Amino acid sequence: MRRLGDGVEAALHCLLVLAGLEEGRVLPGKALAEIHGVSESYLLKHLRELTAAGLIEAVAGPRGGYRLAREPVAVSLLDVVEAIDGREPTFVCREIRRNCPGKSQDPAVWRQDCFIKTRMMAAERVWRDALRAQTLADLVADGERLIDPENRRIVAGHVEKAQR
Amino acid sequence: MRRLGDGVEAALHCLLVLAGLEEGRVLPGKALAEIHGVSESYLLKHLRELTAAGLIEAVAGPRGGYRLAREPVAVSLLDVVEAIDGREPTFVCREIRRNCPGKSQDPAVWRQDCFIKTRMMAAERVWRDALRAQTLADLVADGERLIDPENRRIVAGHVEKAQR
Repeated sequence: MRRLGDGVEAALHCLLVLAGLEEGRVLPGKALAEIHGVSESYLLKHLRELTAAGLIEAVAGPRGGYRLAREPVAVSLLDVVEAIDGREPTFVCREIRRNCPGKSQDPAVWRQDCFIKTRMMAAERVWRDALRAQTLADLVADGERLIDPENRRIVAGHVEKAQR
Repeated sequence: MRRLGDGVEAALHCLLVLAGLEEGRVLPGKALAEIHGVSESYLLKHLRELTAAGLIEAVAGPRGGYRLAREPVAVSLLDVVEAIDGREPTFVCREIRRNCPGKSQDPAVWRQDCFIKTRMMAAERVWRDALRAQTLADLVADGERLIDPENRRIVAGHVEKAQR
């Protein structure tokens, strides 16, 4: 399959960390980059995409940083994928069905979608539905159950030190 | 979403035409390119991918061309997508969960997949399942029902003239 942007992984991990912030606090992009061992410039691109999509808020200034713009339950995995990779369908239909020399050019003949597109889009829809059915709140619950306690303590220490 | 290769559309249309060939006949790549209004060199790349995946057979020589290598019911939409775009997952996991300074480097701590990957892959699996559940035989049935009769006649004329 064609790969999603690797920014999706980084975005989901950042959102998970931001979901753990105390009320009213923000975390600088620099700290998010350090916690995930990625370069700040790389991450800022994706944090801007999450901001543009309304999933996080950027607070400017020396006391600035990022925080969630919505409750975790209102941030679906699909929201994150679309924020990073856009909303276009994965299936590329260039309407080559119309190209055969001699075929009708009457738009009425082509009113219905190509049945190939219809089937490809139907499959894609169940993927989107499955991404939409899972939220950041699920990841938070997973994390409480599955993150190694020592690793959790280490990230919490970084957050504690860097949050504003 | 990140887009699938546009070759997927061309591949599916070509397979549909090849599914309509009479027993024992083959169709040259040149004719498939003309029928779909795409360049032959562009199409040959994708026909090679379909051949490598065992979905079609290439018969060499002056009487050569392409034919299906399997019954249409044994060619799923997933087979075609994977033939063109590969079998890798769409979700890119670079294990950034391990990167936070201070986190354990003990492989035992990281034995289980990251729960973010698990959820992304679960969603992707339903997409693959939906692609796997639809076959070229479904497209053939769609075509019999939905292709405009005049357009069908025109493609049939091209095939009649070019098949070997």
